[in-house]
Amino acid sequence: MMISLGVDIGGTSIKGASVSEEGQIKARFSLPIIAQETGKETVERLGNKILSFINENKMQNNEIVGLGIGCPGAIDSENGVIDYSNNLKWSDVPIKEILEKITGLKVKITNDANAAALGEAYFGAGKEASSVILLTLGTGVGGGIIINGKVYEGNQGKGAELGHTIIEINGRPCTCGRKGCLEAYASATALISDTKEIMKKNPDSLMWKLVNYDIDLVNGKTPFTAKLQGDTYANEVINQYINYLGEGILNFCNIFRPEIIVLSGGIAQQGKDLLDPLISYCEKNDYGFKGTPKVKITAAKLGYDSGIIGSASLFFNNK
Amino acid sequence: MMISLGVDIGGTSIKGASVSEEGQIKARFSLPIIAQETGKETVERLGNKILSFINENKMQNNEIVGLGIGCPGAIDSENGVIDYSNNLKWSDVPIKEILEKITGLKVKITNDANAAALGEAYFGAGKEASSVILLTLGTGVGGGIIINGKVYEGNQGKGAELGHTIIEINGRPCTCGRKGCLEAYASATALISDTKEIMKKNPDSLMWKLVNYDIDLVNGKTPFTAKLQGDTYANEVINQYINYLGEGILNFCNIFRPEIIVLSGGIAQQGKDLLDPLISYCEKNDYGFKGTPKVKITAAKLGYDSGIIGSASLFFNNK
Repeated sequence: MMISLGVDIGGTSIKGASVSEEGQIKARFSLPIIAQETGKETVERLGNKILSFINENKMQNNEIVGLGIGCPGAIDSENGVIDYSNNLKWSDVPIKEILEKITGLKVKITNDANAAALGEAYFGAGKEASSVILLTLGTGVGGGIIINGKVYEGNQGKGAELGHTIIEINGRPCTCGRKGCLEAYASATALISDTKEIMKKNPDSLMWKLVNYDIDLVNGKTPFTAKLQGDTYANEVINQYINYLGEGILNFCNIFRPEIIVLSGGIAQQGKDLLDPLISYCEKNDYGFKGTPKVKITAAKLGYDSGIIGSASLFFNNK
Repeated sequence: MMISLGVDIGGTSIKGASVSEEGQIKARFSLPIIAQETGKETVERLGNKILSFINENKMQNNEIVGLGIGCPGAIDSENGVIDYSNNLKWSDVPIKEILEKITGLKVKITNDANAAALGEAYFGAGKEASSVILLTLGTGVGGGIIINGKVYEGNQGKGAELGHTIIEINGRPCTCGRKGCLEAYASATALISDTKEIMKKNPDSLMWKLVNYDIDLVNGKTPFTAKLQGDTYANEVINQYINYLGEGILNFCNIFRPEIIVLSGGIAQQGKDLLDPLISYCEKNDYGFKGTPKVKITAAKLGYDSGIIGSASLFFNNK
């Protein structure tokens, strides 16, 4: 049996697993992020944890094809270095070199959204497709591009920043410095902010009751729940959100014309309540030249494991 | 010597050539588009022209690796069919089947902008790069995507519609049906229309003199020429154009982070007068995370031959 190890580095913890060629998780491990540590110290601790994980599970190094890592932030995948991670406050961490030295395994790294995209493309929502675009709708809007079954990362691993494409010239300021990025309209953060804004203008919105009249309790679910209860303001916020996200998705349809676009992250967990109006918007507004194939739009299937499975899949090639 | 034949189908004529593996044009042919003909008739005429071209040039079929065709419109490259071409009024033309039957050569087809991108990537401005994005700034805004030295066309050849990505939600109506597409702001058509608009508002603009007071004579060069002569209105139109085009280019930088973006088509012929302010805009507004490599922005080098050479290159693989 061919086994690959996959690791997903998050903001508060690192999760890993041994993964079979069929995308099945065999055994898991995890370790916390410790804020006082440097990136190098955390990665060394990760390396030692992997060594003991291999021992505990009685694996032989020669049955492990490699160790794949999904990292947040700006990654130099060619050289295996985490250039900069805003969330982790890491910079210039030569993670490939450190982990290869400690574990003796071959190491590959990629951005966390790319890893999730690869996991979904190989073993999740996109497993029948050779071209897959993944969008994560969370704090920001992340992107992963799978072309012919391979991650496309751009020069030095710095592409696939799908959230940082403007949909409104000179529009809302984005954390990246540009104005009008998709992320500033279609992230969970943006939806929550738009929801709060309409609530402030409309004290009669049902949403106030849902959050017990405490606006700080608004989250990405609030407008979806209120819409189901017939709140017109929630309906308005969601229609606007669908308009923004739909136009972003139609841009990626026209650029990539992929077989499938997979949505992950907090907002994607709304499932049908998000997908039904979104698919209907995209079908209505899709670029209509003759013979243009439809793009399937769906939610991720692997949940929080897409990153681990995708990182492990850097050593598989099943497309 | 390995020879491939390349054909570029345009709105008024079809141009072709024999091309060496080094991207050198050896001999040329051309034939007019005849409006009264059906697509099938024109393609049959093209096939016979190619046969006589091969004879005249004393080539043997076994020294020709293939016949590559760049076609405008919506192409089904997998099946070798021109689904629909608005300019030519062709639909469902099985060009691959017809030409293979007449010539006995292996035939591949691609969209004309993809062909130009491949030509520039192999033998023109992008020949040192493995990832190249080409934008044609003409009547519309076309796109070509070269990844790892290969054309990326999307599902059934329907991707790479880079001009049909919105940069302004609910913005200017585009011929494709969407609102706010890059094409509606950054094509030569858009620049001419914006120039006329500012001229109408400002009878004292130098541009009036340049066109002999006949607004129908405004073309893509007019504002560039007037700007050099110090016309502030022309300067304003060009700054606005650079803003639009620059934001579109920065989107493609963030999506693909290619090594190079190549501009072709009418507006790109302004050379330095376009490139200097554009590069300066993009450098100032580029996404600035640590380690993000710069994208070179430049004009096409092969001129009108990029399509012919690129079509022929469908049978080369020099990356």
